Amino acid sequence: MSEYNPLPLVLAAEQFARLPGIGMKTAQRLAYHILTMPAGEVEMFAETLITARKTVRCCSVCRNFTEKETCAVCSDERRNQKLICVVEAPKDVTVIERTGGFDGVYHVLHGLLSPMEGTGPENIHIKELMERLAGEVDEVIMATNPTIEGEATASYISRLIKPMGIKVSRLAYGLPVGASLEFADDVTLVRAMENRNEI
Amino acid sequence: MSEYNPLPLVLAAEQFARLPGIGMKTAQRLAYHILTMPAGEVEMFAETLITARKTVRCCSVCRNFTEKETCAVCSDERRNQKLICVVEAPKDVTVIERTGGFDGVYHVLHGLLSPMEGTGPENIHIKELMERLAGEVDEVIMATNPTIEGEATASYISRLIKPMGIKVSRLAYGLPVGASLEFADDVTLVRAMENRNEI
Repeated sequence: MSEYNPLPLVLAAEQFARLPGIGMKTAQRLAYHILTMPAGEVEMFAETLITARKTVRCCSVCRNFTEKETCAVCSDERRNQKLICVVEAPKDVTVIERTGGFDGVYHVLHGLLSPMEGTGPENIHIKELMERLAGEVDEVIMATNPTIEGEATASYISRLIKPMGIKVSRLAYGLPVGASLEFADDVTLVRAMENRNEI
Repeated sequence: MSEYNPLPLVLAAEQFARLPGIGMKTAQRLAYHILTMPAGEVEMFAETLITARKTVRCCSVCRNFTEKETCAVCSDERRNQKLICVVEAPKDVTVIERTGGFDGVYHVLHGLLSPMEGTGPENIHIKELMERLAGEVDEVIMATNPTIEGEATASYISRLIKPMGIKVSRLAYGLPVGASLEFADDVTLVRAMENRNEI
């Protein structure tokens, strides 16, 4: 931004630009918008973000985001606790819940194996998944994204689980290869869930 | 967002979605990102926005954003104070400053005349512009966007100024009609400034 812009405005734009998917032009536009908002609304916006970061933590069972010790899915007795769907991130839980086609529980890895980025098995919640499998579990559905890292992670985890005699399955390829689970439509996602294959 | 999402996360997404150009999917992505940021960084982000809103105000002369009573352009003695460039918004000042091709000063209207949206002459800083013209001014350049509202506003203001014997000009149409000044490239913008026509 120009040297003629006040520093606090430049700093605000730089903060926005650090968010994922927000380029410098969009960041500047948002920073300008902040200045035109009523001061009370800016404070509410800021406080909402701080509150979200402070009060939301990971479920002690599945690692999904929750305000409580255990998340709403894990503490729901109507859910099949013997069917665990493994996903990369909390947003994937939202996407699958939206379909209403899954009655099991989740396990959120918070990442995928990626040697390129230095993410190994110890950096994502695989150990916690293994600990859950010591209990009574019928099946683990690997619902990581159909990308190289997603496939590699599903494959790695399935090799760990199979010797335990637990069924491991993978979402059916109704999903376009290389795409992101987040952008799949509900019907495709339900079908992929129904046609899951043992791996 | 799903009912299974913690409320603070949903609220954060809703706040992001209120920003211009941010849809619900992007807002959700940003809210999730906030939860994965170090708490200190979220606080810094929030405080930067509050500080920007609190410390940045409008220049008492040209109404551009500034931290001081008078902005850097208006208080710069090397700038031609007799040449006033009228723009819709502070971001347009940034765009024109970036070209380095203008040595006058600005007047920021903070809006355009728009009967459809109920924006009349009293809602934008036209009165303040007229007060400035009581001093010694050689020329006023109307640099509002080449849109219907931008043209109407330029035309309205020029009709007010002409009887005062002050030259009024309009940016040359090097700009693509219907587009936004913000996305013009520097060369086009400099040419439009050079070829401005008296109106």
